[in-house]
Amino acid sequence: MAQTQIETAIKLLLQEAEELCIGGQISELQQMPSALEFARDYYARNAPVVIRQAVAHWPAVQKWSPDYLQTALNDKVVDVAVTPNGYADGLATQAGKEYFVLPLETQMPLSELLQRLDDPMGAVHYIQKQNSNFSLDFPELAGDIVSSDLNFAAQCFNKPPDAVNFWLGDERAITSMHKDPYENLYCVISGYKDFILLPPHQLCCVPRRSYPTGIYKRKSCGQFFIEPLIDNGEVQQTEWVSIDPLAPDLGTYPQYAKARPLRVRVHAGDVLYLPNYWFHHVRQSHKCIAVNFWYDMEYDSRYCYYRMLEQLTKKSDELK
Amino acid sequence: MAQTQIETAIKLLLQEAEELCIGGQISELQQMPSALEFARDYYARNAPVVIRQAVAHWPAVQKWSPDYLQTALNDKVVDVAVTPNGYADGLATQAGKEYFVLPLETQMPLSELLQRLDDPMGAVHYIQKQNSNFSLDFPELAGDIVSSDLNFAAQCFNKPPDAVNFWLGDERAITSMHKDPYENLYCVISGYKDFILLPPHQLCCVPRRSYPTGIYKRKSCGQFFIEPLIDNGEVQQTEWVSIDPLAPDLGTYPQYAKARPLRVRVHAGDVLYLPNYWFHHVRQSHKCIAVNFWYDMEYDSRYCYYRMLEQLTKKSDELK
Ligand SMILES: O=C(O)CCC(=O)C(=O)O
Ligand SMILES: O=C(O)CCC(=O)C(=O)O
Repeated sequence: MAQTQIETAIKLLLQEAEELCIGGQISELQQMPSALEFARDYYARNAPVVIRQAVAHWPAVQKWSPDYLQTALNDKVVDVAVTPNGYADGLATQAGKEYFVLPLETQMPLSELLQRLDDPMGAVHYIQKQNSNFSLDFPELAGDIVSSDLNFAAQCFNKPPDAVNFWLGDERAITSMHKDPYENLYCVISGYKDFILLPPHQLCCVPRRSYPTGIYKRKSCGQFFIEPLIDNGEVQQTEWVSIDPLAPDLGTYPQYAKARPLRVRVHAGDVLYLPNYWFHHVRQSHKCIAVNFWYDMEYDSRYCYYRMLEQLTKKSDELK
Repeated sequence: MAQTQIETAIKLLLQEAEELCIGGQISELQQMPSALEFARDYYARNAPVVIRQAVAHWPAVQKWSPDYLQTALNDKVVDVAVTPNGYADGLATQAGKEYFVLPLETQMPLSELLQRLDDPMGAVHYIQKQNSNFSLDFPELAGDIVSSDLNFAAQCFNKPPDAVNFWLGDERAITSMHKDPYENLYCVISGYKDFILLPPHQLCCVPRRSYPTGIYKRKSCGQFFIEPLIDNGEVQQTEWVSIDPLAPDLGTYPQYAKARPLRVRVHAGDVLYLPNYWFHHVRQSHKCIAVNFWYDMEYDSRYCYYRMLEQLTKKSDELK
């Protein structure tokens, strides 16, 4: 009876949202909104929007190419995430066991990275350090970004960004489905990014569980293996999304059939506003360059409702 | 097990909200916010705010008194809600049966209303017609209100008000606990209003059920009685809140002990922003005069989550 009540309640949630067209589309703007429009029409509703060509006039969009960066950065040494398969924070199987795996983190001169990106048979390389690496590691490039152009959103978030990140990598590099407690302004500078999005209220369609956590290491012959991360004598656990939206295994995860994934290609000069807690999966064109701004989210009643939903969608074996 | 899961989920909702101070206070501003501030800090978060003395300079606040209105309105005939006990849309018992009761609606010259308001032993009179009666019935008074002063909110709601209502009544008149699908800007012109508010996510603490619906009628001797409203041969049913926040019956409704009602007195010249779906209970000083603006709400994911919560808090006998 109560189980039916949970199912009925979640069904009602999905149905109301579908009928009201909530989380059912990614709006597009052809010009920058005012701060008020942005706050009212997108931020307040936790609704994504792509602003086409919003930053097309940035020097970065005009100038940045891999070769330009090599010169402008004087071939400096950069932090790179390396994986055998392109999944930096994602799932992988070793000896029949599924892990959540962190990338091998290494450093190399930019010229070496660019060479490696030109080898489609080698390991997959990605500058994807989400520690404000744009601000910290690439001060030489700061002048090519006119961040005041993003004031429409900054005034709405009403705080400085928590992190400004720089992304450059292989077309085989994939960011697997996840969500962040951030308001995200994602600016593509060169090439394009393909996002697959799911609104937070569709949580019940998104299978997830705890995975043992490992990190990629390489043998001297270059072969990758997963080394479990041990914490106090136990393998660390990470909760992660089980589904691959590019090839959903509906036999194992039939609930995903009810998900309504949204797709959008974000081109050079475009800005995507990705609201907090939206699930996202990201692919890219080869050597795509991007900069994104993460602002700490505000915790409001919508977040509390989400936490309730999370509890309601826990499988019974997790509740013990 | 699943029942426990619902209880755990709702407990988590209340706990997260309490820890994050969500719905735990009514903010106060000493000056008008900009439209952006209002959208960002209050509207987006579904958070109430009182703006002290925001409309203190309105001619209405300077001029309106019962006597002034009688002259300015040329003693016109007005629509008045009359009840024996002050509860216009509220619960009352007759012959041991509890009803949701609508007021007796009548008309009288304003001078007669003012005389009746001066009789503390008579029936309770209240101008409270929520059909945009300010715009429809009192065009003579429109010039005393500078509605452009509310542009900070109007720009945020981004549509004309659905209704502008005028309120004038007895201190015994009480608006019982309920919620509306509106963004509400409540402007007190003369006297004060006392609001008791509950945030929507505390729904599980608010007992409510279906009541047979009646309307007050009077016998020729003047005595009130409740006449059931019949629809297709059956007494109409109305879902209403069972609790009186002024004297909560915690024996019958123990869940209300977990509610955290907020109280605020709104004085002449103050504006209260009451966000959609907040429960409110309203009392007033004698002959308090107020004007409020109702804007249709936007239906977003927060609303869908609320609908889910509503389903989860249905009693098992309602689920059959
Ligand atoms: O660009 C990517 O590969 C991932 C971006 C992302 O996950 C984020 O900005 O939160
Ligand atoms: O002023 C009152 O008595 C009630 C006001 C109210 O319920 C409303 O404005 O929604």
